[in-house]
Amino acid sequence: MSPEHLKTVLKEVQEGKLDLEKAFQKIKDLPYKDLDFAKLDTHREIRIGYPEVIYCAGKTIEQIEKIFDYLLDGGSNILATRASEEVFQAVQKLESKAVYHKLAQAITVKKKEIPLSSTYIAVVTGGTSDQKVADEAAVTAEIFGSRVENFLDVGVAGIHRLFDSLEKIRSAKVIIAVAGMEGALPGILGGMVGKPIIAVPTSVGYGANFGGLSALLTMLNSCAPGISVVNIDNGFGAGYLANQINQL
Amino acid sequence: MSPEHLKTVLKEVQEGKLDLEKAFQKIKDLPYKDLDFAKLDTHREIRIGYPEVIYCAGKTIEQIEKIFDYLLDGGSNILATRASEEVFQAVQKLESKAVYHKLAQAITVKKKEIPLSSTYIAVVTGGTSDQKVADEAAVTAEIFGSRVENFLDVGVAGIHRLFDSLEKIRSAKVIIAVAGMEGALPGILGGMVGKPIIAVPTSVGYGANFGGLSALLTMLNSCAPGISVVNIDNGFGAGYLANQINQL
Amino acid sequence: MSPEHLKTVLKEVQEGKLDLEKAFQKIKDLPYKDLDFAKLDTHREIRIGYPEVIYCAGKTIEQIEKIFDYLLDGGSNILATRASEEVFQAVQKLESKAVYHKLAQAITVKKKEIPLSSTYIAVVTGGTSDQKVADEAAVTAEIFGSRVENFLDVGVAGIHRLFDSLEKIRSAKVIIAVAGMEGALPGILGGMVGKPIIAVPTSVGYGANFGGLSALLTMLNSCAPGISVVNIDNGFGAGYLANQINQL
Amino acid sequence: MSPEHLKTVLKEVQEGKLDLEKAFQKIKDLPYKDLDFAKLDTHREIRIGYPEVIYCAGKTIEQIEKIFDYLLDGGSNILATRASEEVFQAVQKLESKAVYHKLAQAITVKKKEIPLSSTYIAVVTGGTSDQKVADEAAVTAEIFGSRVENFLDVGVAGIHRLFDSLEKIRSAKVIIAVAGMEGALPGILGGMVGKPIIAVPTSVGYGANFGGLSALLTMLNSCAPGISVVNIDNGFGAGYLANQINQL
Amino acid sequence: MSPEHLKTVLKEVQEGKLDLEKAFQKIKDLPYKDLDFAKLDTHREIRIGYPEVIYCAGKTIEQIEKIFDYLLDGGSNILATRASEEVFQAVQKLESKAVYHKLAQAITVKKKEIPLSSTYIAVVTGGTSDQKVADEAAVTAEIFGSRVENFLDVGVAGIHRLFDSLEKIRSAKVIIAVAGMEGALPGILGGMVGKPIIAVPTSVGYGANFGGLSALLTMLNSCAPGISVVNIDNGFGAGYLANQINQL
Amino acid sequence: MSPEHLKTVLKEVQEGKLDLEKAFQKIKDLPYKDLDFAKLDTHREIRIGYPEVIYCAGKTIEQIEKIFDYLLDGGSNILATRASEEVFQAVQKLESKAVYHKLAQAITVKKKEIPLSSTYIAVVTGGTSDQKVADEAAVTAEIFGSRVENFLDVGVAGIHRLFDSLEKIRSAKVIIAVAGMEGALPGILGGMVGKPIIAVPTSVGYGANFGGLSALLTMLNSCAPGISVVNIDNGFGAGYLANQINQL
Amino acid sequence: MSPEHLKTVLKEVQEGKLDLEKAFQKIKDLPYKDLDFAKLDTHREIRIGYPEVIYCAGKTIEQIEKIFDYLLDGGSNILATRASEEVFQAVQKLESKAVYHKLAQAITVKKKEIPLSSTYIAVVTGGTSDQKVADEAAVTAEIFGSRVENFLDVGVAGIHRLFDSLEKIRSAKVIIAVAGMEGALPGILGGMVGKPIIAVPTSVGYGANFGGLSALLTMLNSCAPGISVVNIDNGFGAGYLANQINQL
Amino acid sequence: MSPEHLKTVLKEVQEGKLDLEKAFQKIKDLPYKDLDFAKLDTHREIRIGYPEVIYCAGKTIEQIEKIFDYLLDGGSNILATRASEEVFQAVQKLESKAVYHKLAQAITVKKKEIPLSSTYIAVVTGGTSDQKVADEAAVTAEIFGSRVENFLDVGVAGIHRLFDSLEKIRSAKVIIAVAGMEGALPGILGGMVGKPIIAVPTSVGYGANFGGLSALLTMLNSCAPGISVVNIDNGFGAGYLANQINQL
Repeated sequence: MSPEHLKTVLKEVQEGKLDLEKAFQKIKDLPYKDLDFAKLDTHREIRIGYPEVIYCAGKTIEQIEKIFDYLLDGGSNILATRASEEVFQAVQKLESKAVYHKLAQAITVKKKEIPLSSTYIAVVTGGTSDQKVADEAAVTAEIFGSRVENFLDVGVAGIHRLFDSLEKIRSAKVIIAVAGMEGALPGILGGMVGKPIIAVPTSVGYGANFGGLSALLTMLNSCAPGISVVNIDNGFGAGYLANQINQL
Repeated sequence: MSPEHLKTVLKEVQEGKLDLEKAFQKIKDLPYKDLDFAKLDTHREIRIGYPEVIYCAGKTIEQIEKIFDYLLDGGSNILATRASEEVFQAVQKLESKAVYHKLAQAITVKKKEIPLSSTYIAVVTGGTSDQKVADEAAVTAEIFGSRVENFLDVGVAGIHRLFDSLEKIRSAKVIIAVAGMEGALPGILGGMVGKPIIAVPTSVGYGANFGGLSALLTMLNSCAPGISVVNIDNGFGAGYLANQINQL
Repeated sequence: MSPEHLKTVLKEVQEGKLDLEKAFQKIKDLPYKDLDFAKLDTHREIRIGYPEVIYCAGKTIEQIEKIFDYLLDGGSNILATRASEEVFQAVQKLESKAVYHKLAQAITVKKKEIPLSSTYIAVVTGGTSDQKVADEAAVTAEIFGSRVENFLDVGVAGIHRLFDSLEKIRSAKVIIAVAGMEGALPGILGGMVGKPIIAVPTSVGYGANFGGLSALLTMLNSCAPGISVVNIDNGFGAGYLANQINQL
Repeated sequence: MSPEHLKTVLKEVQEGKLDLEKAFQKIKDLPYKDLDFAKLDTHREIRIGYPEVIYCAGKTIEQIEKIFDYLLDGGSNILATRASEEVFQAVQKLESKAVYHKLAQAITVKKKEIPLSSTYIAVVTGGTSDQKVADEAAVTAEIFGSRVENFLDVGVAGIHRLFDSLEKIRSAKVIIAVAGMEGALPGILGGMVGKPIIAVPTSVGYGANFGGLSALLTMLNSCAPGISVVNIDNGFGAGYLANQINQL
Repeated sequence: MSPEHLKTVLKEVQEGKLDLEKAFQKIKDLPYKDLDFAKLDTHREIRIGYPEVIYCAGKTIEQIEKIFDYLLDGGSNILATRASEEVFQAVQKLESKAVYHKLAQAITVKKKEIPLSSTYIAVVTGGTSDQKVADEAAVTAEIFGSRVENFLDVGVAGIHRLFDSLEKIRSAKVIIAVAGMEGALPGILGGMVGKPIIAVPTSVGYGANFGGLSALLTMLNSCAPGISVVNIDNGFGAGYLANQINQL
Repeated sequence: MSPEHLKTVLKEVQEGKLDLEKAFQKIKDLPYKDLDFAKLDTHREIRIGYPEVIYCAGKTIEQIEKIFDYLLDGGSNILATRASEEVFQAVQKLESKAVYHKLAQAITVKKKEIPLSSTYIAVVTGGTSDQKVADEAAVTAEIFGSRVENFLDVGVAGIHRLFDSLEKIRSAKVIIAVAGMEGALPGILGGMVGKPIIAVPTSVGYGANFGGLSALLTMLNSCAPGISVVNIDNGFGAGYLANQINQL
Repeated sequence: MSPEHLKTVLKEVQEGKLDLEKAFQKIKDLPYKDLDFAKLDTHREIRIGYPEVIYCAGKTIEQIEKIFDYLLDGGSNILATRASEEVFQAVQKLESKAVYHKLAQAITVKKKEIPLSSTYIAVVTGGTSDQKVADEAAVTAEIFGSRVENFLDVGVAGIHRLFDSLEKIRSAKVIIAVAGMEGALPGILGGMVGKPIIAVPTSVGYGANFGGLSALLTMLNSCAPGISVVNIDNGFGAGYLANQINQL
Repeated sequence: MSPEHLKTVLKEVQEGKLDLEKAFQKIKDLPYKDLDFAKLDTHREIRIGYPEVIYCAGKTIEQIEKIFDYLLDGGSNILATRASEEVFQAVQKLESKAVYHKLAQAITVKKKEIPLSSTYIAVVTGGTSDQKVADEAAVTAEIFGSRVENFLDVGVAGIHRLFDSLEKIRSAKVIIAVAGMEGALPGILGGMVGKPIIAVPTSVGYGANFGGLSALLTMLNSCAPGISVVNIDNGFGAGYLANQINQL
């Protein structure tokens, strides 16, 4: 439940437009909605400013349907991550306006239009294979109202490709740098740009990459400051945080 | 063989109701039953107080059938863990009263009714995806006679959901706290509740989770005391130990 | 060399106040100053907005003296991290205004007064032993112009201590959360506060803590979004980044 | 502040024996005592049933003195762990009744006499080098009121030594099993005793022991149920938890 | 080529029964047979006393056929490990006497009868799931001429099962101890039996077992001496070495 | 775009054979060709001397087709690694001269004939299962113009096989040594041959091999000098570097 | 207590030379001698054939003195490992015949002369720095009655040094191969010698050696069979096991 | 013994200038010199082209003296690595011309003058703290006859410092890139320079650097080809290999 939604209900009570019982029904799930198998954090948007996001991995389709079913009654935009196409097909039956972002494996439902920010987030990737994680970040940032500019495949193997985009990256309010393998991209950016950089290691690579560990350690040990790191392949976390900073 | 079962046999011999040869047949497997591929620990219930449990992973269906075949002749309740639906179908043919706990992947056969304890075990989970492990714990505790109360999806991302249940959790005799990802739930509980907490890390998560290692280390390093940890995804171990403590 | 410093030089040339040779001497080190054993990145402040910081670990006192010697001639504030008392004594001989921050093991020299920001950074620690790392973060943020508010020893073992400070933490523009052992503090904050959180794992702990690995993994796997992580014990990195965000 | 202490204050107010201002002074630190560098969790004993314990590692002697100074005014027994002899000498000046447990590196101060439990905790060690950790567990359990029986050096290299003590171990209410190197002791006990076992891996060993990792993994993977594990060398955690279970 | 085989050829040359050209054809592959994709170590049996064994994993069926094709012309017994049923079907077409050991995933071809040793190797397993690895060890030891006695499912969870077999295990010349999960069995045996013990960790287990790492570390850190360790799941290596020791 | 190609275009402009607009079209992609999802580093060959290579893993077939489509218009030879047969079938439709190297999983297209070097690279493997990685190295070195000699299956288990080839290995200009399991081959060679050795660990093995980690560490710790290491299974990297050295 | 010692006592009782009370005093410590802080396994020599060995690391000098004090009264030879010079000085006061093996850090006391075996153990080292571990192995094997031949510094960096000694190594009954860094020596020997090889990884090395992990993994993954491994730096374990095999 | 040295001896025999006995004395140590505790590989220079190098770590000063004593009689230049000042003082007494390279911790003795190569090796470092490892590489390369050019402190935090040196780095025949922390430097170079790059990770850093593991993994996973890696801090290995390549 969004703060505006709650204020509207309270105002209607104040103005006598809504009787107490109906108002109670509307706000009784305020702290959370108990779905038996899950307790939806409906208070989250008031407390933190952002509605709960559905992490689909490890949930059955039936459980996801029930969660959507409840959230679709609310007024907030909805984001579901790590959603397979099968999950999307089930969601689409509940809400035809649901959109599937295939590469990002994310579902979004826009219940209200949020004007995009004038400032923007730069999403920069090292290689083509990192795009999937970058897309998760971009979809997340956009559903929460941030404008995103993409700078794809500008990794260190051909660093002149990065230099061409440098001015536009520098003009962003915050940067998401996504890279696998050696994960050097965020450190390079940190040496050239004075904006906050959220580094996302990806599991792209093989051998001594150890599922993204290599890129993760690189980013944590960057000698350029201004960089912080989220979990391997955690595009959502990067997009969420970047939006928070962008909206400051 | 349960202690009562053994005493009954001995009493019948004493009273002349059972001749020696038949009594010998009944108790000759006391230390263990040698099934060639396995030595069933039939002495376990007398020695420790609990019958042997069948861990199905890595056993063929034929082997599991033979073990069930033997145990079904005894008087003890039976628990089989990590059992696939295929295993259950084979067991069901041997014993129609067998029950399959789908999420927990466990089979139980009640040979005798055990009255549930008046005190209870609180099973608390961080998220929906942890429920499978929590269910294994609950099924285990219940087959051994403990009452279980579930508090699902009350993880730290929306900690007010936990506070609502706090009084009922505090009233438990022992707590099982199941959590994946960062695994912070047991430590939070340890700071608020003065009861023994058995922490179960789950393999839920991705990236730097490393198959549950992240949650495992968190729980081992908890700064709140009163917490001990079992193996990753080891709901059975937690349920077994919690029942032991609950029955004290 | 700061942008203002450079502009002043250029203006003096334009106005004929400075002859070319002298101007050349002043700006000839612009890209970097080659000290033979090191190349000081004197261009950094123009390019990124922040002057180079001296990381003392692994450098000899003689090398550090030479670097200070050069930087003291410039107009920028100076920060040296991981500096022992012995290093400070050497620096103090070069510049009596140098200040030693003992717990943070940092040296600062204020060449110009920077007005502190109206918004502030909340530095929150889990326990008393984390304060050293928190101080490095605070000293760093302050030398770059950010106001800092400290919330010490509010870790999860007694979480009501955190709740008392919650409103003031929520009012910060950005939060630095420092914790060792299990490292759960940033995740707890992430579930209650809608501001960007920079998580700093510390090496405080023993056993399966593995030098801070436990806290690092906890923070990377946080199920609450809005959190990113810097290297173990990297208070400087957190303070630098927090200041960048705070100054947005 | 212990529950009895608080009730006494309140009763004196009710009976007019204590004026409001004095009562306020006595209970104003109830939630916690802010010592600037630390927030003592004075509410802990009421909330959880046990007073806060002082973990000395990483704290300066001055800080430890201030904490003792405050706690000595209260009515609860005091336990400080990981305390060097130097720390003890400082504490002894504040309170001559303080006792130093050298092997356990612990300090205790008995402010009130707690009658030892009739049931007891069995502390079992694999080898002589594990005794230090076992002592920390024993000192902890005793200061909280549990009787402890020690069974030292009965590890698996000469398992008949264990068998001699088996009946007395079986009669304990809960068992603490401390072992380094391969860490097999808790698993052996788990196969022979039906009581809850708290396993404590120690860092005793060399080579592929990796600082206790070997024993830790052994204990987590035990095929005998009824075992849970605390952090490497965490005698305090084991003693605390064992006392909780013993007092049930 | 076995030493006897070579001596026969040489003797026939000496006695004029074999002309030089034919003798040359017979022994020209002595150092190794170059199959283009592989160099068969035909000299191995003369140098070391044992013929080369075929490790099938990672080889195509076509390659395995060619190796068999060549070895079947020699006089030595043949052992192929990690062979799927599909591989066996191909081999069977080349040599109908080939035997498939299903659990061990091994193929043997007896070209000459080797009398089994009077002394024997004890193969001891912790649980039913370890039998597969134990069988690979047994098949290997037997094809090289060692008598094997099996003691299955006598792990530490019910250690009395082991005690019943102790005398027969003690009478072996060398012991192979196979165990997964915590891997405590070899250490227990080492404390009770004065014979060389070859410990084989298996990958049986889950969670913090990390693919057999737990059992491996346990065995390497055993406090009982007389134990050495082979690779995880390496039944072949254990059987080969045990046979060497048994034949001394 | 190769340097010769570029010079030809410029010369044609100089000689008036090519008008400016056409010349512009030909060289406008010089720094890189932006394919939207990827930025092809077309400048690479001029800058470094080698054209960009297509790493197919993690790219869709559609993306690979578009990259080939563009590169086929240029004059450089093309190499694509980690290409499945499915990828090859798609490429073959675009260019019938494309060749698939099945074991190496590589595609090559020869746009111009490069004369093979007179000196050669020795590719040495420990076992049959390492050949796949060795082939990737050989295909890579050859497409860039180096002659390759193979010495397969000469690992340390039968080291006399290596000695036979030693003179020919010594005569190479640079050596690629490919080995899995224990990975001892490069170290052995380093003690016998005075040429640069590029060591390639492979993931061949099981158990404590940990996906090639064992061989990787062996090679990094070699006590014989003259050895450097590339990533696990990185045949391409070894072939590329060996060619660079061979062409010196 | 050695088997002969016990038989002598019993025979004296039988022959009336020893009264019952005295005999009882002599054999009452048979299962173990309880020294309060330790339970000496006095039954070990009868059960296993070898007396208990004193592992000094982690024991106080006072404890070691008490153990020696007791064992010196028995008739068995004594071995103490990981003993500092300080420990030796204390022991020497109790028994002037005690010998200190400096490099091996071992103390031996010969109470009875054991004739050295006619067969011998070959102790082979890779480099000079491995000699310390090799010496611990040799001292151990010799005190238990095995003849030892040393082959030092014959590692793979100059493998011809090994070849010169090959015949003498081949004639040993069992081989101990000690190596640090890459640890390839045992595998090389395994390919050339048909005797059991006990591999001892040492912690000699730096960087990616990770305290001996590199050599340990190499040895576990050896492609030559006939090799088993003991813990890093565990010369004692290797010497003990080699003696067992040598005495077969 | 160098090849020229050996040829001179043989020529003197041929010409009758040297009698057989004296010649025998001169070349009798050809395969190796047995110093009891070590076998000096005197054949190495003939076999491989480079004399044996003394690795001082783990050797006693007495042992090092004996090795120097022997080598000083030969005609080859001498290099000793990981040598403390104490070692140098001992060596200087044996040979006053010995030179100590303090930062590199290396000793060199020039027995013959080697003309430096016309081509050169570029030694590039990321930061001031990496210089120690770089110096070990440079000293090694120079004693074997390679010219070295240093490019210090040009790491990615201020990458424009690298660009200034790019042309001179490109003109080297081979590049040694030394970097700690994130270790991105070699990958950056690989994207800009077409020469073989030997990457040396250093243990410079803290926290999640894990003693150089971070830089090691970064370098192994570099997406730019043409890079291979030596052990952490292994400046010697890099200098040795670079010289081999430079001398091709």
